[in-house]
Amino acid sequence: MYVYSFLNDYSEGAHPDLLKILATTNEQQEMGYGEDTLCQKARELILAETGNPAAEVHFVSGGTQANLIVLASMLKPYESVIAADSGHINVHETGAIESTGHKVHGVPALEGKIRVESIRAVVEEHGDEHMVHPAAVYISDSTELGTVYTLDELEEIAAVCRELGLYLHLDGARLGCALTSTHSDVTMADIARLTDVLYIGGTKNGALLGEAIVISNRELQSHFRYHIKQRGGMLAKGRVLGSQFAGLFTDGLFYRLAEHANTMAARMARGIEDLGFSFATPPQTNQVFPVFPNELIRQLNTKYAFHTWEKAGPDQAVVRLVTSWATPEKAVDGFVEDLGKMG
Amino acid sequence: MYVYSFLNDYSEGAHPDLLKILATTNEQQEMGYGEDTLCQKARELILAETGNPAAEVHFVSGGTQANLIVLASMLKPYESVIAADSGHINVHETGAIESTGHKVHGVPALEGKIRVESIRAVVEEHGDEHMVHPAAVYISDSTELGTVYTLDELEEIAAVCRELGLYLHLDGARLGCALTSTHSDVTMADIARLTDVLYIGGTKNGALLGEAIVISNRELQSHFRYHIKQRGGMLAKGRVLGSQFAGLFTDGLFYRLAEHANTMAARMARGIEDLGFSFATPPQTNQVFPVFPNELIRQLNTKYAFHTWEKAGPDQAVVRLVTSWATPEKAVDGFVEDLGKMG
Amino acid sequence: MYVYSFLNDYSEGAHPDLLKILATTNEQQEMGYGEDTLCQKARELILAETGNPAAEVHFVSGGTQANLIVLASMLKPYESVIAADSGHINVHETGAIESTGHKVHGVPALEGKIRVESIRAVVEEHGDEHMVHPAAVYISDSTELGTVYTLDELEEIAAVCRELGLYLHLDGARLGCALTSTHSDVTMADIARLTDVLYIGGTKNGALLGEAIVISNRELQSHFRYHIKQRGGMLAKGRVLGSQFAGLFTDGLFYRLAEHANTMAARMARGIEDLGFSFATPPQTNQVFPVFPNELIRQLNTKYAFHTWEKAGPDQAVVRLVTSWATPEKAVDGFVEDLGKMG
Amino acid sequence: MYVYSFLNDYSEGAHPDLLKILATTNEQQEMGYGEDTLCQKARELILAETGNPAAEVHFVSGGTQANLIVLASMLKPYESVIAADSGHINVHETGAIESTGHKVHGVPALEGKIRVESIRAVVEEHGDEHMVHPAAVYISDSTELGTVYTLDELEEIAAVCRELGLYLHLDGARLGCALTSTHSDVTMADIARLTDVLYIGGTKNGALLGEAIVISNRELQSHFRYHIKQRGGMLAKGRVLGSQFAGLFTDGLFYRLAEHANTMAARMARGIEDLGFSFATPPQTNQVFPVFPNELIRQLNTKYAFHTWEKAGPDQAVVRLVTSWATPEKAVDGFVEDLGKMG
Repeated sequence: MYVYSFLNDYSEGAHPDLLKILATTNEQQEMGYGEDTLCQKARELILAETGNPAAEVHFVSGGTQANLIVLASMLKPYESVIAADSGHINVHETGAIESTGHKVHGVPALEGKIRVESIRAVVEEHGDEHMVHPAAVYISDSTELGTVYTLDELEEIAAVCRELGLYLHLDGARLGCALTSTHSDVTMADIARLTDVLYIGGTKNGALLGEAIVISNRELQSHFRYHIKQRGGMLAKGRVLGSQFAGLFTDGLFYRLAEHANTMAARMARGIEDLGFSFATPPQTNQVFPVFPNELIRQLNTKYAFHTWEKAGPDQAVVRLVTSWATPEKAVDGFVEDLGKMG
Repeated sequence: MYVYSFLNDYSEGAHPDLLKILATTNEQQEMGYGEDTLCQKARELILAETGNPAAEVHFVSGGTQANLIVLASMLKPYESVIAADSGHINVHETGAIESTGHKVHGVPALEGKIRVESIRAVVEEHGDEHMVHPAAVYISDSTELGTVYTLDELEEIAAVCRELGLYLHLDGARLGCALTSTHSDVTMADIARLTDVLYIGGTKNGALLGEAIVISNRELQSHFRYHIKQRGGMLAKGRVLGSQFAGLFTDGLFYRLAEHANTMAARMARGIEDLGFSFATPPQTNQVFPVFPNELIRQLNTKYAFHTWEKAGPDQAVVRLVTSWATPEKAVDGFVEDLGKMG
Repeated sequence: MYVYSFLNDYSEGAHPDLLKILATTNEQQEMGYGEDTLCQKARELILAETGNPAAEVHFVSGGTQANLIVLASMLKPYESVIAADSGHINVHETGAIESTGHKVHGVPALEGKIRVESIRAVVEEHGDEHMVHPAAVYISDSTELGTVYTLDELEEIAAVCRELGLYLHLDGARLGCALTSTHSDVTMADIARLTDVLYIGGTKNGALLGEAIVISNRELQSHFRYHIKQRGGMLAKGRVLGSQFAGLFTDGLFYRLAEHANTMAARMARGIEDLGFSFATPPQTNQVFPVFPNELIRQLNTKYAFHTWEKAGPDQAVVRLVTSWATPEKAVDGFVEDLGKMG
Repeated sequence: MYVYSFLNDYSEGAHPDLLKILATTNEQQEMGYGEDTLCQKARELILAETGNPAAEVHFVSGGTQANLIVLASMLKPYESVIAADSGHINVHETGAIESTGHKVHGVPALEGKIRVESIRAVVEEHGDEHMVHPAAVYISDSTELGTVYTLDELEEIAAVCRELGLYLHLDGARLGCALTSTHSDVTMADIARLTDVLYIGGTKNGALLGEAIVISNRELQSHFRYHIKQRGGMLAKGRVLGSQFAGLFTDGLFYRLAEHANTMAARMARGIEDLGFSFATPPQTNQVFPVFPNELIRQLNTKYAFHTWEKAGPDQAVVRLVTSWATPEKAVDGFVEDLGKMG
């Protein structure tokens, strides 16, 4: 067995506070399908956070589900969405977006971040009815490569989207780690203000499950519950999702958990760097991507679980190490120590 | 506020034993996406129950999701599914099946149960490429009207499906209550043997969430995880679903919870009958459908929550009363007592 | 070989005038994809006919294609369409509408005609996000059973659609025969005024191929060419379609051809009635549905091709006899004569 | 008005021989929906050409329609298709393939031709259920850039497809020009042998309309007419399509028309080259892509219609000149002469 798994940020269950809410509210009778008091409370807490009382908040159980429901509700049949080629919807959702009928334009990205030039280029190349009509931009923050957007970058993307008539959808599966990154100058209210729709990830930040969809653009709010239901995303016991977000947004738990994950990752990155290794992308959140020799990877794998991301030449590879709200300091320190010994 | 809600069987959280498993396993690191030890244990327990070690078991979070994934994986683009006109996929899933491209034939049913004559008729009417090709039959057990299929009825439907080249998919959102009904002579192994795919409902039988899909037909097992992922049904923390089913199928909890719900419903039905009221469909499981005068319904509604199902003439209506694993005897008795006073 | 086929109204090629236009314009270079001068001319002629210069006209090659493009462009993912249970989209398009993601509500109809009570009933039964949202009504004129709507009936349906927020789409595969029926008091301008979208059938009224889609509702006009292209309906040589409609709407050819088909059918119906046979639906256009003994059908089939529509008891059946712009009087008279001898 | 349009190969109507068949067969009664004697004859002629009597042949009206029906019939919901990034399905079909639920992988291509390394790379990158499953390769011959595959190249692609379990679909919208190119060593029988499905373009090679789909892989033949009907591709008067292909494959008309187009293009290319201009891709078929200064393009556009394909630096651009079966020698010579004067 592994000493510790750095495979992902959903290896453990839920933060104890969130389990506790489930237990303490377990016997009260609630309405079904997200119309319960726990969802209601979570909605109010999230709206306060976003600073936009006119936004709408919905809860679904997973990230692919959130993305496909949002984009299918947003796009007309002939419309498409622009994403980084490393974007989750482009690579890791088994064609979920195409399955709802829409093309995803995967464009080259810099360290996982889409650039406005790429957005402009796609729009300029698509000018008539023989081609799809790009109508939305999808970004992830933090990105699939662990990097974060700065406020300037987000403002620029949002401005280009407005100019070109594109909706902006932000996949915040790891939004907590993005917002609490020491490399970020962005707040939840900024994100809510700059996007048409965003989803706030619970699963990867200490919740048992759950993603909160925040629809700031009022025209996109219409009939959204129909979309959720049709795609199989409406839980009968919506209270389960509500409870998680009610807990996460009480006393800043959401941010504290993410900050812990970031802190652990930074500690690990510092240790790795001190040992002389480099990184494929700059370590900014809870996912770090060091480059290790293949033989070292083999040895590390006898004690630690992690993904080998991609080759980096004949003798070495990029690996992905992920920390979470649950990662203990001693697991990080142990890893670095072993790295020093094995390296 | 209501004294008690008989609106549905998902008003409460989870049975305490199931919450407890979540708590005791919370800190252990598990693989994601349903490849954890809890899902593995749940799979083994369910396979033992079905008596078919070659079946495949998958877990998803909701019933509409289960139905749409199963049917979309089963049907070719031009193929359709036959269901009772009162069937959940035909009425209460916001067109989820059509959304995946397939026609649902809603056929007249008797007390929620589809008859083989109706199946034959649809197949006979569809003979060439100008029409869809019926390729599956969908049944619910217990049905949307609270009734159950007998073993003879299921054997007959399965035989007709085999004869006509149709897959048989059973929606067991309330399978626990069906199997433990005093009106049923069917076992889980019978169901697994007679169907190509079935799903066993957790949400409505004491689980926090979760439906277990059992694929007995081996040709339908191929690449099923791709379908789950593509439709947004694969939870990162699949352990949540696994834990519920591991608990439900330990020491017969699944059956005990369902039996309690049935017992409460039978007690309520007896009380209602003793007061001289009749039923729209025979009370057989945890959903009972008495016919009450409109004025009585208004009065009952001041203390109890329940659905008014449909009109039954100018002055009365059918209501739906649902009990669950959590329904206390005193809620049932209180309701009957109030009914006697108000009626 | 058959003496004559009454199977349908597309057994012959095109009216000679329409072939002639193809020949005389064959060498001129034209723009592709419906932007040619022939399509332009046809558009102007049709707009004049409809009396609505703000309408948009598009051409596609077939009826199923027209229906699926129109409805897929009209409906949001969770929306559905109401049709007669005998409606073409409900029965004879291999699930084309469901294939684009939408439920078709097949409701009981009287002689192929939908009634406003049925429309109201569907809307009333669908009130929340657990069910599809009915958003359009589909009617055929003439209907699949050869009957026609009166102006009063169309006004009533259109009024109910406006009241309930439903689009009205009219499938005019046989609109020529409907408008020229002696049982009709409706004009093309009436139809265009009362519907949101209508399609005018060319294929079944003397054209080589082609259906003209007329979009009166301006909000439905947006980006319609994208929908046509995406569904494979945009012909490179759109001139072929334009030429047919330019010809049909010159000097009233469209109406003359339809009138001929109706006259032939009426002559045939009179002959059949005089011989003492009855009809399943009143003969009003170019499709007549007499009831014949099975043995007579067998004998007729040695000389004439036609569809046996459905059983009408143990010893007889309804057959469908279709006349067209090309049916010669002598084929009709020959059939009636043979019927008299064999009957 | 333009002196001549080199915009495309569908500016004129049909070759006179094909119009003539329409005229001479116009009055004979035929079965509908592709079951007529003209389609039957065309099928036999095409099968003889392909050398595979076990293949199936179907006719549809356009290329996007052919591609979407073929791929939608071929792929399971989670499967994807690999194409050149310049491929028609990836760029110029308004997302038709995605609209049927499938991802298109656009991979870098050399002069419009896909390379086996790219196919292998896509397959290698897609290994689990979190990603789509590549199941088909789409190629065009001639390509969108006017180039042709050699027999060696096709054999290599077919071998890799077999090895990797991928279907091979060839879009032959301009197959005539490919097969008759002086740069090609491939026959129709080669293509039919090496592909699972291919479509032979009529529209761009002298037909009024029509594409013939040839299904060599027997497992893909099942229920294909259902797919055609469901996607709106089954013409009531299928005879129109049959007549075109019956004519094209009589006395080698198909090849003669294509050869003429190629000859005209080669003549034009030679003239352009002699004037000192270069080409973006080597001229091999009826589409040539010379690079002209922007000012010259402006001048040419006063007399000739053609597409400006893409920028080639600040002062010049690639244009596309297309010849066809109908292009007269004098139009080509006139263009070259004008080019010499203006250049």
